[in-house]
Amino acid sequence: MKKAVVLTSGGLDSTTCLALAIEQGFEPISLSFNYGQRHAIELDAAARIAQHYGVQTHLVADVGLFRAIGQSALTDDIDVPQADSIEHIGSDIPVTYVPARNLVFLSMAVGVAETQSASAIFIGVNALDYSGYPDCRPEFIDAFQRAAVTATKWGVDGEALTIETPLIHMTKAEIIQEGLRLRAPYHLTHSCYAPTRTGLSCGRCDSCLLRLKGFTDAGATDPIGYEVL
Amino acid sequence: MKKAVVLTSGGLDSTTCLALAIEQGFEPISLSFNYGQRHAIELDAAARIAQHYGVQTHLVADVGLFRAIGQSALTDDIDVPQADSIEHIGSDIPVTYVPARNLVFLSMAVGVAETQSASAIFIGVNALDYSGYPDCRPEFIDAFQRAAVTATKWGVDGEALTIETPLIHMTKAEIIQEGLRLRAPYHLTHSCYAPTRTGLSCGRCDSCLLRLKGFTDAGATDPIGYEVL
Repeated sequence: MKKAVVLTSGGLDSTTCLALAIEQGFEPISLSFNYGQRHAIELDAAARIAQHYGVQTHLVADVGLFRAIGQSALTDDIDVPQADSIEHIGSDIPVTYVPARNLVFLSMAVGVAETQSASAIFIGVNALDYSGYPDCRPEFIDAFQRAAVTATKWGVDGEALTIETPLIHMTKAEIIQEGLRLRAPYHLTHSCYAPTRTGLSCGRCDSCLLRLKGFTDAGATDPIGYEVL
Repeated sequence: MKKAVVLTSGGLDSTTCLALAIEQGFEPISLSFNYGQRHAIELDAAARIAQHYGVQTHLVADVGLFRAIGQSALTDDIDVPQADSIEHIGSDIPVTYVPARNLVFLSMAVGVAETQSASAIFIGVNALDYSGYPDCRPEFIDAFQRAAVTATKWGVDGEALTIETPLIHMTKAEIIQEGLRLRAPYHLTHSCYAPTRTGLSCGRCDSCLLRLKGFTDAGATDPIGYEVL
């Protein structure tokens, strides 16, 4: 059975990606990243979703770097960052400001793919992120695939490694419709940037608003709980 | 003053690279990786070398992933890796078996470069590694540079980011001659895979033998201490 590494954040898009990889006949290896994001809760969601699908290998990679370069103090003369540096980071650094994030995440996925003999990597980048983030553009994905192949055994033995971006040209509503068709476990997903202590989504942050609008546009109901609706 | 991120391992090659970056007029940002390599001693060497050159920003990025995928147990059904997973890894995993290592390291360097507004990344890959490691080939470096530019602000604003590999076509002896010309602090470097408790190099491992042969071929004397010579 052919294998695929699927980048999973616990959100809607990567969950849909995972569902698509499985539909396409891949045995998925899910890979999440603990990189100092504000909401460890999304890592819990990713784990639950992997469990839902019976994913045999669910990896959580710890990436200390982003915590470090996210610190504005880095521009000062300081010796930096061991894993415990997370405590020095303000909770108000938006994860959206992480430079080269997809480049680093995909590179790590290549390492996993090579070790696990996977032939594809799925990443849920999509057109909604397109304008703001250079590393969500098809141009980047194409260039990265070339770099990934030349970096690894694939560049030597001539076998294929592909970077799959099935959502890249979809709207949020189209992604949700695709996920509903595949019965993706959206009730287990998490998108909110500012959840309550009990895990309810706030319903007011950008991520919640985008998600809710997606469900409305898709003519569907979001199955997760919101504090404010 | 233009800035460069220099990947520094504490060894001969990256130290020569750092010396070359400085000679070329760059303000260096040194970046080392704590990725479960057998010899944390090389991180100490990298820090001393950064200090020798008065490097203002010396970063040590913690990369948990390689510890995880280095485990052969990963192919089993296990939930993996938080930073503390290093204790589960045998000390006999050669660092040379790390897949996609340069891809991941360079990707992280791109994140640092973008944050720090550096215009170049120096990496000390060279022809001696060429045959065995796909990610030391010029073909990979070229592909990676394209991916790095498209992944980041450089792909949007049109400014240049270059991946500099000044050692790529040099022999070890030529690298050493270049470093001696630049008075690189080779006495602070570390190459040995199996140092004694007091920090002496073994003089017998592959890395020591390659280093010693390089000095001999360069007609120079290695300034570090060896247990056996």
